Amino acid sequence: MQGTRVRALVWEDPTCRGAAGPVDHFGFHTDKTFKQRYLIADKHWKEDGGSILFYTGNEGDIIWFCNNTGFMWDMAEELKAMLVFAEHRYYGESLPFGANSFKDSRHLNFLTTEQALADFAKLIKYLKRTIPGARNQPVIALGGSYGGMLAAWFRMKYPHLVVGALASSAPIWQFENMVPCGVFMKIVTTDFRKSGPNCSESIRRSWDAISRLTEKGTGLHWLSEALHLCTPLTESQDVQRLKDWISETWVNLAMVDYPYESNFLQPLPAWPIKVVCQYLKNPNVSDTWLLQNIFQALNVYYNYSGQARCLNISETATSSLGALGWSYQTCTEMVMPFCSNGIDDMFEPHSWNFKEFSDDCFKQWGVKPRPSWIPTMYGGKNISSHTNIIFSNGELDPWSGGGVTKDITDTLLAIVIPEGAHHLDLRANNAFDPVTVLLARSLEVRHMKQWIKDFYASLRKMH
Amino acid sequence: MQGTRVRALVWEDPTCRGAAGPVDHFGFHTDKTFKQRYLIADKHWKEDGGSILFYTGNEGDIIWFCNNTGFMWDMAEELKAMLVFAEHRYYGESLPFGANSFKDSRHLNFLTTEQALADFAKLIKYLKRTIPGARNQPVIALGGSYGGMLAAWFRMKYPHLVVGALASSAPIWQFENMVPCGVFMKIVTTDFRKSGPNCSESIRRSWDAISRLTEKGTGLHWLSEALHLCTPLTESQDVQRLKDWISETWVNLAMVDYPYESNFLQPLPAWPIKVVCQYLKNPNVSDTWLLQNIFQALNVYYNYSGQARCLNISETATSSLGALGWSYQTCTEMVMPFCSNGIDDMFEPHSWNFKEFSDDCFKQWGVKPRPSWIPTMYGGKNISSHTNIIFSNGELDPWSGGGVTKDITDTLLAIVIPEGAHHLDLRANNAFDPVTVLLARSLEVRHMKQWIKDFYASLRKMH
Repeated sequence: MQGTRVRALVWEDPTCRGAAGPVDHFGFHTDKTFKQRYLIADKHWKEDGGSILFYTGNEGDIIWFCNNTGFMWDMAEELKAMLVFAEHRYYGESLPFGANSFKDSRHLNFLTTEQALADFAKLIKYLKRTIPGARNQPVIALGGSYGGMLAAWFRMKYPHLVVGALASSAPIWQFENMVPCGVFMKIVTTDFRKSGPNCSESIRRSWDAISRLTEKGTGLHWLSEALHLCTPLTESQDVQRLKDWISETWVNLAMVDYPYESNFLQPLPAWPIKVVCQYLKNPNVSDTWLLQNIFQALNVYYNYSGQARCLNISETATSSLGALGWSYQTCTEMVMPFCSNGIDDMFEPHSWNFKEFSDDCFKQWGVKPRPSWIPTMYGGKNISSHTNIIFSNGELDPWSGGGVTKDITDTLLAIVIPEGAHHLDLRANNAFDPVTVLLARSLEVRHMKQWIKDFYASLRKMH
Repeated sequence: MQGTRVRALVWEDPTCRGAAGPVDHFGFHTDKTFKQRYLIADKHWKEDGGSILFYTGNEGDIIWFCNNTGFMWDMAEELKAMLVFAEHRYYGESLPFGANSFKDSRHLNFLTTEQALADFAKLIKYLKRTIPGARNQPVIALGGSYGGMLAAWFRMKYPHLVVGALASSAPIWQFENMVPCGVFMKIVTTDFRKSGPNCSESIRRSWDAISRLTEKGTGLHWLSEALHLCTPLTESQDVQRLKDWISETWVNLAMVDYPYESNFLQPLPAWPIKVVCQYLKNPNVSDTWLLQNIFQALNVYYNYSGQARCLNISETATSSLGALGWSYQTCTEMVMPFCSNGIDDMFEPHSWNFKEFSDDCFKQWGVKPRPSWIPTMYGGKNISSHTNIIFSNGELDPWSGGGVTKDITDTLLAIVIPEGAHHLDLRANNAFDPVTVLLARSLEVRHMKQWIKDFYASLRKMH
């Protein structure tokens, strides 16, 4: 791992390194350490007047995030920046207990946001200590989605280590009592409603169609065939699994509804929801017909390459995401209430039932979620005393519902991208980028340059 | 514990309560809880326009701190304030594992500043939720010494919960590479040098006198008699213990060199170092004579009451302080380098040897100190992005050497009290208070009132 080159889709292949740090920053009973992976690229870095752009890794393989964060590569030269992509503990290759990391709650005990932020802090100190010329340079935290929350929280908790943060599509308010639990599914629905006539209505009607079809003896078999499922549905509880899988597909499509062909969660065409909606124009058809249309729609997401021979309802996205770790995190700190009512959204009604959620978590992981902890730790809606954080959100992105979409102060800024899906602004420049994301990026760069300028000005004042 | 009255030396007896909270805020493997004790007094509290003064308890029994923080009681009426004194975990009666709390490093694992701050955060949320009228009130953190560090750090890490902090005698910079390790003993020495002619010189000479005396066969016995020790010195390693105990006595005297009769670490006369120095006017006497004078000086500290029949070299201060817990904390996070050279100070030369310190810690507690962690976590000298913290220090106080004694920004303020010892400003008003501490207190109150005013102004703006 130390110093090998990794293949990147971007201009320059970054170097992959590892830094040892404590497994437990907040306790001394164990002094076990683990190796945190990070990628580093310094082609455009300048010792004189340069900067360090630090990606606060989220729930997945850091190489994958690196390849999907072209914005950092695009602005490296302008900011004379060293790029660092830090992998989040318990994801990718940064496993504190190797293959045993997910074994039980004892091994998972150190998977928290606080430990992850402390890893980033230690890593920045380490880089500044060991890279000649890095010591007196400003660091900016950047991240998207959960990584965006971490970027924002990192600036809040360690403002001495980063001069500012760009938190893209970071739903820091998608927690207890901060936004309506239905806002997420409502935005997904809006995306479908706006992407084609009757599109959301077709989906809304599909749930009852599935129920009716599978009530009959041969329904499970018919549906398995119609949807080309790899593993046929055999029992009635498979029906709920199927519905959950289809719902998650629509959710994912809303997240990655990018204006050009892309491959984030899956290989997809440009504006994939529009493509999906071409198959969902007519809700007033028979149940079997509707479900055959649903299959065509799903096929856009799961088989854009045309290579898939069947659809696997155990999978909805790239395996670069660490599903196990994230499941544990949502069962402990990252308790995000979601709900749907079937009226404001196109999903089956599903209320947020914390008790049930908690019981499931205990069954699966042997832990009990603490829903009020994140707001207590990170301030909830009361964050106005912090400075230099940009919260960017795309209006197509369901996560924008839990994000900061209005300026809080003149240094806690919100940037809204009407045509943007999930952290579109962090992606590489593209000829098909809507102008609103270009504006967003240029505004972001302008603020980052100001933070860097302010840093050097205060450095000069000190000497 | 729930709702009983505790005896306080101050005007009103506060109510003692307990709040349950997690033993481990940063891990989910255990969901064990413990009861944190806190004292509460609301005689002067007003729901309309009032405030909450929150004492961030340090390493000892909270009743004792409550009784030595008269300043909060003195200003309660003016600020219409509810007073809350929160006990620090692992001290007083707030023991996460009861009698087993100090058993081994596994039980001690949750004794960290981060856990303590998280306790305070949970407690404030709990009080706001459960006390009618408290919800929309500003909270101010106050603390002295280690409690002062916690108050400052609490404002830095949880600015959404407290509008400001008064950190009295908080040596937040007494850590790795921030101040010279000798500054502490130098200030102790200055106090003695200024309190009487030849005083520090007598002490400087006493160490060699002890060495010479105890080299002889009967020296240990003679010295044990001369110093009225409860347990006679029997072996040569007792000599070092004796010297350490005497050194600590001078250090403690420097901390509590208050202008009036007091009882903080011990019952003492006004300006106790002056009284001590009356016995140490002549350094040019025989070793036996000098040590007899040293006994008279020690006797001021250990026997002001006249009741002590002998001096116990295992004790230097009140048992209200939790010596065990603090020893563990200095062996883990709170690694404060100290040294002396015998030239700039009156002590025997003693360099700071981290390796030796670490080995001792491992022997005693089975843990290894992490000296760079506190600066990484709390920012070291780079704290200028925070706001609304007052750092007050007394110039007589050896801890002022590691404190903030110059303004950092216009909301990170330093107040220096030339005639002040350790957190004199937090003590109750006294007829013998020097004018400089009165000025300090009035400045502190003025700032607190401004924070409260700003809070209500921004609350009104929101509605």
